[in-house]
Amino acid sequence: MARFLLGERVMLYRTEAGAPIALADYCAHRAMPLSKGKRVGGDRIQCPYHGIEFGPDGHCRHIPSQKGTPQQMRVQAYPLVQRWNWLWIWMGDPELADEALIPNHADFSFVDGNDFWKVALWRMDFACNFQLIHENVLDVSHVSFLHEGLADSGSLVTTPAKTVVEGNVITMTRRWEDLLTDRYAKTFGIADGTRVIRTNIAKTYVPSLNVAMNFFEFPDDPEKAPAMRSAPMAFTPETDQSCHYFMAVGANYGEEPVGAALEAQGQALWNLILDDKDATEAIQEAYNILGASTPDVSVRADEGAIRFRRMLAEQMARELPQVSS
Amino acid sequence: MARFLLGERVMLYRTEAGAPIALADYCAHRAMPLSKGKRVGGDRIQCPYHGIEFGPDGHCRHIPSQKGTPQQMRVQAYPLVQRWNWLWIWMGDPELADEALIPNHADFSFVDGNDFWKVALWRMDFACNFQLIHENVLDVSHVSFLHEGLADSGSLVTTPAKTVVEGNVITMTRRWEDLLTDRYAKTFGIADGTRVIRTNIAKTYVPSLNVAMNFFEFPDDPEKAPAMRSAPMAFTPETDQSCHYFMAVGANYGEEPVGAALEAQGQALWNLILDDKDATEAIQEAYNILGASTPDVSVRADEGAIRFRRMLAEQMARELPQVSS
Amino acid sequence: MARFLLGERVMLYRTEAGAPIALADYCAHRAMPLSKGKRVGGDRIQCPYHGIEFGPDGHCRHIPSQKGTPQQMRVQAYPLVQRWNWLWIWMGDPELADEALIPNHADFSFVDGNDFWKVALWRMDFACNFQLIHENVLDVSHVSFLHEGLADSGSLVTTPAKTVVEGNVITMTRRWEDLLTDRYAKTFGIADGTRVIRTNIAKTYVPSLNVAMNFFEFPDDPEKAPAMRSAPMAFTPETDQSCHYFMAVGANYGEEPVGAALEAQGQALWNLILDDKDATEAIQEAYNILGASTPDVSVRADEGAIRFRRMLAEQMARELPQVSS
Repeated sequence: MARFLLGERVMLYRTEAGAPIALADYCAHRAMPLSKGKRVGGDRIQCPYHGIEFGPDGHCRHIPSQKGTPQQMRVQAYPLVQRWNWLWIWMGDPELADEALIPNHADFSFVDGNDFWKVALWRMDFACNFQLIHENVLDVSHVSFLHEGLADSGSLVTTPAKTVVEGNVITMTRRWEDLLTDRYAKTFGIADGTRVIRTNIAKTYVPSLNVAMNFFEFPDDPEKAPAMRSAPMAFTPETDQSCHYFMAVGANYGEEPVGAALEAQGQALWNLILDDKDATEAIQEAYNILGASTPDVSVRADEGAIRFRRMLAEQMARELPQVSS
Repeated sequence: MARFLLGERVMLYRTEAGAPIALADYCAHRAMPLSKGKRVGGDRIQCPYHGIEFGPDGHCRHIPSQKGTPQQMRVQAYPLVQRWNWLWIWMGDPELADEALIPNHADFSFVDGNDFWKVALWRMDFACNFQLIHENVLDVSHVSFLHEGLADSGSLVTTPAKTVVEGNVITMTRRWEDLLTDRYAKTFGIADGTRVIRTNIAKTYVPSLNVAMNFFEFPDDPEKAPAMRSAPMAFTPETDQSCHYFMAVGANYGEEPVGAALEAQGQALWNLILDDKDATEAIQEAYNILGASTPDVSVRADEGAIRFRRMLAEQMARELPQVSS
Repeated sequence: MARFLLGERVMLYRTEAGAPIALADYCAHRAMPLSKGKRVGGDRIQCPYHGIEFGPDGHCRHIPSQKGTPQQMRVQAYPLVQRWNWLWIWMGDPELADEALIPNHADFSFVDGNDFWKVALWRMDFACNFQLIHENVLDVSHVSFLHEGLADSGSLVTTPAKTVVEGNVITMTRRWEDLLTDRYAKTFGIADGTRVIRTNIAKTYVPSLNVAMNFFEFPDDPEKAPAMRSAPMAFTPETDQSCHYFMAVGANYGEEPVGAALEAQGQALWNLILDDKDATEAIQEAYNILGASTPDVSVRADEGAIRFRRMLAEQMARELPQVSS
């Protein structure tokens, strides 16, 4: 299987033992895509052109037309681990790969521990830079317009968020006291006329993940557990003009293993995010036309987006080779 | 409604009162196309993404997520007026917009005054620079070959034009005495065997408009009004590789309000101009391949085209910011 | 008829007398493709736009809208000859065109003299640089993998070639003694169980032609003529990202004029070379992504390919204008 990631073609496969492996998808000999080849001998990849074989570490193991394998015959291997049902790849300096950088999903799992979410919903492909999607979810004021009548009653745009930054995590919190069941609360199965307190938390783990958490408390029934939903979204750059949008969702209501309500939510989200796709792709197109003359006047609701841009720029600067004076 | 004009995306709409408005089609906030939004409050445009509103002057009137609107939050507004059934946009320095530059259509209206033409025929989209279309109509010798047997009897190529230049107008006149009704005269409803004097005038208003005027006089019947047709054609650049070809036509024969003969003429012209489209697009493709090594040997029939090129270059030079010494 | 050759659009036609002519496919006037025009007066080409006519030498012969033809009104004429059933074009300095550079097909014709081959099989269009196809046929070790089970029994990859270079010809020879009829020998109509000696010769005439020759000798029947097949393949660059693959084949078995066996071979070859097309186009795509960072570690089986690259680079260097010191 081949994926474009950060502009590189990457081949993903699993060894016989099931370990996930990521290699640059270009044979070291003549750049033939290894992803068109096959797995041989349990964990090697055989190039389909001249049959040259590479191990999971990228080193050449066999050249059919000769004895011996030159040391330089190797493809780049990328550190890759599977955590919290996602695959995490590190495409920078392999020495700097650090599993501790992977967001601890317990922080936003309301429910079942490690395997907390109920369903990985889907992947959508966007023809825009992944930053535009981050900015989309970091300014929820768009929900009242782009998704008018679909996801809230207009209150997101008029309720400012409290923003907290810790390390590479931007947390934006909105809280509404004394609400009555609205269209959004109903998707949590809350009965009409119930008095609720709603909390919306958007946590962005720069650069990879955004998590939308929503829960409803019941002031008239303090014993009752809050109804909670947590939706981690991974935005993965393909190129600087395209990316993947992975969506998962977990909740503490509905039936096990996957409530029909949650699946319906997944479909509703898909439709809603098609609007985000239209908007971010139209903006990417405009950016491409405008180039350096792109307008960019920010408003107060852009606080999260601005912080994201700054943090991403800092992270990228740190990755650049250091020049000593 | 959105149009590409001179490489910019422009949104066109009308206020509640009907005034035509042209704004740059990029929201000042994040470049979202305003043309995907809607008109609110009679004359404002609301961005579909975060609901920011702009007036017909391009200034921001409302930001839903906050009070107040920063001064810089504005989009470019282009001077736009409606004259002679066309919309005229000025995309240069707004200070220099001057309605007096709009060609006075009375100059080539044979018939009914301001609202002189009978029918706006159609728009065709060409994948070439608009200059190639101007050069097409400025050298009518092509009619005898590209449109062989369709529009004249071969005499256009062998009858040199008298060329007069006044201001930004190039006028080329051809005159044939003592003709008998030919295939072209028949399209004016002139009976077989009639002796006629034909005049063909092509007026080019650099850079926007070309007008083809044709009329037949009747030397054997001096009382009889000449049969006349006037076809203004507007060539509007989209990008440097594409343009629109707007065609209208007026005549003093046929029935009111629009003669079936004129409509048939429109269809015949459409088919004929499809050949021009093939030719100019093939030339654009050749120019793109050849780049700086494009051949370009001119002949005497190119006099009008050469004058057009020169005049256009001068107009563009005048638009460039002046550097004082 | 128009073809792209070395990035130029070339018009090919025959005079009334049948002589093949190649002209640059851009009218000297306004770059209109002459290939959309028609042949007039036996050997002239008439531009379809304004009717300007050019002779087989590229010089202008007639301009309908005026008397006289300016000296500069000419299109480039390329030396073109027909030899051995192919058309050979010379696109460099016409002074250097030399028919002696055309490979003498008698050198690889086993059979019938000048008109030796039985059938020109087909043309396939590849979206890659022509060098990638040369390298494909110069390293036949790929046959054992890319065409696994289709064309040999795996022995090509393990049998090193003897390589000889003479002038611009690279000859690679492989020989197998004491074989029994295998799947490949069967395509020559050799009966099961026959002991054979197989010789495979690949001759590359840099830059235009590769010839695959295969023959089987019969050690148990020295009187019997060897079964022979010769397949000249012409790789013609269209642009630096595309080329034509012309395939012909001759043999001394099967029935005259063209054996059904040979035609079946042609279809089998077409299918097999579709795999080469997939591989070389995938590599071209990879090269385009990777640019200067393209991996390129060679193995011993690349000897022929490396020699080809070097020889082609030398030929191109010789074509460059010389700068005297």
